[in-house]
Amino acid sequence: MVYLKGKHILTGKQFTREEIEHVLQVAENFKEELKSRPSLDLTRGQILATLFFEPSTRTRLSFESAMLRLGGSVIGFAEASTSSTAKGESLEDTILTVCQYADVIAMRHPQIGSAERAARVATVPILNGGDGAGQHPTQALLDMLTIKTEKGTIDGLTVALVGDLKNGRTVHALVELLKHYRVNLIFVAPEELKMPLEITESLKSHGVPVKETESLPSALKESDVIYMTRVQKERFQDPQEYEKLKDAFILTRSLVDQAKPGLTIMHPLPRVTEIATDVDSYPGAAYFRQVKNGLYVRMALIALVLGKV
Amino acid sequence: MVYLKGKHILTGKQFTREEIEHVLQVAENFKEELKSRPSLDLTRGQILATLFFEPSTRTRLSFESAMLRLGGSVIGFAEASTSSTAKGESLEDTILTVCQYADVIAMRHPQIGSAERAARVATVPILNGGDGAGQHPTQALLDMLTIKTEKGTIDGLTVALVGDLKNGRTVHALVELLKHYRVNLIFVAPEELKMPLEITESLKSHGVPVKETESLPSALKESDVIYMTRVQKERFQDPQEYEKLKDAFILTRSLVDQAKPGLTIMHPLPRVTEIATDVDSYPGAAYFRQVKNGLYVRMALIALVLGKV
Amino acid sequence: MVYLKGKHILTGKQFTREEIEHVLQVAENFKEELKSRPSLDLTRGQILATLFFEPSTRTRLSFESAMLRLGGSVIGFAEASTSSTAKGESLEDTILTVCQYADVIAMRHPQIGSAERAARVATVPILNGGDGAGQHPTQALLDMLTIKTEKGTIDGLTVALVGDLKNGRTVHALVELLKHYRVNLIFVAPEELKMPLEITESLKSHGVPVKETESLPSALKESDVIYMTRVQKERFQDPQEYEKLKDAFILTRSLVDQAKPGLTIMHPLPRVTEIATDVDSYPGAAYFRQVKNGLYVRMALIALVLGKV
Repeated sequence: MVYLKGKHILTGKQFTREEIEHVLQVAENFKEELKSRPSLDLTRGQILATLFFEPSTRTRLSFESAMLRLGGSVIGFAEASTSSTAKGESLEDTILTVCQYADVIAMRHPQIGSAERAARVATVPILNGGDGAGQHPTQALLDMLTIKTEKGTIDGLTVALVGDLKNGRTVHALVELLKHYRVNLIFVAPEELKMPLEITESLKSHGVPVKETESLPSALKESDVIYMTRVQKERFQDPQEYEKLKDAFILTRSLVDQAKPGLTIMHPLPRVTEIATDVDSYPGAAYFRQVKNGLYVRMALIALVLGKV
Repeated sequence: MVYLKGKHILTGKQFTREEIEHVLQVAENFKEELKSRPSLDLTRGQILATLFFEPSTRTRLSFESAMLRLGGSVIGFAEASTSSTAKGESLEDTILTVCQYADVIAMRHPQIGSAERAARVATVPILNGGDGAGQHPTQALLDMLTIKTEKGTIDGLTVALVGDLKNGRTVHALVELLKHYRVNLIFVAPEELKMPLEITESLKSHGVPVKETESLPSALKESDVIYMTRVQKERFQDPQEYEKLKDAFILTRSLVDQAKPGLTIMHPLPRVTEIATDVDSYPGAAYFRQVKNGLYVRMALIALVLGKV
Repeated sequence: MVYLKGKHILTGKQFTREEIEHVLQVAENFKEELKSRPSLDLTRGQILATLFFEPSTRTRLSFESAMLRLGGSVIGFAEASTSSTAKGESLEDTILTVCQYADVIAMRHPQIGSAERAARVATVPILNGGDGAGQHPTQALLDMLTIKTEKGTIDGLTVALVGDLKNGRTVHALVELLKHYRVNLIFVAPEELKMPLEITESLKSHGVPVKETESLPSALKESDVIYMTRVQKERFQDPQEYEKLKDAFILTRSLVDQAKPGLTIMHPLPRVTEIATDVDSYPGAAYFRQVKNGLYVRMALIALVLGKV
């Protein structure tokens, strides 16, 4: 029996396969229920606090919409400059304070481990909405929901992760969940931005077949799902290296047209140039449906930690 | 039959006289209903997103209050620095994302045409809350409601528009609506800030009598309604020209006392010095009632595009 | 009969003992009612506007949570840069505008007297959430509620106020309320940051016994309640003076262990170093319960001025 009531959601690593499937199932149920009405009445009178020490419109609005669609209310801040942090307050004191005002907290913070620190003192559940280069478990779960709803299954798929695999917390969190499934992984990255060795090793020791390549076209030939992320100039020590490589990790329509039929294209967004806009009309371009899945997954997590499911 | 359900509200130009009257009628009904209770129950469970890429407290709070008074909820951001735009996301992607979270979007953006761009990709109705020097249709409609409720009618009135008629998007939007009525217009502006010729010509060809003058006192003698806007120093190429002219476009109490009896005074706000504060107690000073009418008109527009009327 | 409906809450000075007790009683009732459900249904459909011309996460979120827990809704801004003030609008015009959107206004402003100015033009109740070095009456009332609920009574207690008593608006507001009770006060401050003479004199003439000292340990020996505030470096003309004194006004666990048994420790928060974190586990450390009392007191004040009690 899966039981998340009162739990913190801090990292992809905390989830068993059974728990992942439970969250996805609850999310899918909510998706179904929202077809006939704009919101539910599950968390009436309860308050979500969104504490964004680092701005992220997408993630913040997704959490807020999720709480409102469940029937609850929202308070919070969108950037640290308007918070007590500017006055020198510790993260712990801010969290202890907000616990007096809210029933659940969603937070984003620039420092790795900050969600964990918050959870140590909090008297209400903490939902980690990204802590620096650390974890982003709600993103990973919405990615799983997207794969499942686009493909009907997760087991048996070949999934390519493309771009900055060294620094990308979304891909790090995602493989933590994918490893519970029977998937083949392809990592497509320039040498300088390869997936960290300990992650690749851990996946292999977990029995997950992993292939590494620098060729996006070849990965496209055999992938069922491609997960694009951005290759940022500032990540390269040598700018010339960036100039040489950047176009190799851009998904164009002609590349898509040569890919394995039925390809599903994902992206955590925001995108800049890494997916050409003429890809948007391709039926398998799932990134805006992925955004919507974020709503359902966050509804599920809020409802679950509040014990409303 | 007027039918705005699912429509975008982008510009004053899109409205027929029949549609204007329908919006004003719905707004007046809401005003009446709010006399007996603080809010309605029309949009329960639905979400308005307020996307203010450029700050505007007045317009944002007006939209938010309107949605809350209809019984709905609100998410959003108050300035671009906290939005994904800062990360290089296109306006189109931001809109497509927010469409996954909200049922209707009110936006303000510094660039002309941005509301139109948003509407081209949006899957929910867009309400233009001002796009640079472009349009501001909700302001124009609330101005119309103010004239109608202050005067009982719009047809037959003489309306003077005063101040910066060259750059003022509120006056440009307002004349787009007034041209459907039997009004006389007086444009009161310094030579450098005159109403653009194409607007004056278009009004005349539409059969609207237009008079132009630089004399505020003479306009006051024959106007039923005077619409003040600010003459900003930075609009003048020659600062000395500004110094010479600025006092000529300030409405003082003594000017008001010499005006045509029953004068209605309007202003889109915020004002700085262009209306002296001792004018506030004059019974025809309608600018704060105008603010309230903004609430009713935005309630009407939200309810109409959501198909709730 | 105590009657606050439609009243502004501007200063600690405006309250009689009867009114203080009424507010505390209503707050305690709400506390009791919230034990069995997450929110009440008293202000359904009504809107609180939080106008924070100066940022204060704690106070803003407390007011917002209070309104939501009463069943109402919230609009507002968290800092002046996103408000019309940036466009040169007067405080009075901003208030007159927001009165068209909301049923009650909570504001914080950097200037002394600004809440009073707002109240002069407002058509809805103003709740002063701090005006510069001026007043902060909701903080003072929540402090009173904390003393009462921690101690069971206020009469007969010895209360020590510690730290910057010269500039601290919270201690100035608090003694305005305490003077209605039979309390002994101890003021513990460095010479440069002593309680202003007019306040000390006024308390004495009111019959309140006041003792002044620079010794925190000696005050701890006889106090039932200690109210800590921060000694800020920038308040000293001579930085060396600060270095010499600062440690004398820090509350450590060993100091607490030598204090009068049953000591209650309060702090308006945010704290920086003036209370060591190992004091947090002391049973009488009441500062986070104090935060929660802020919620109840603000619920009481909102409900009272809206005539909902």
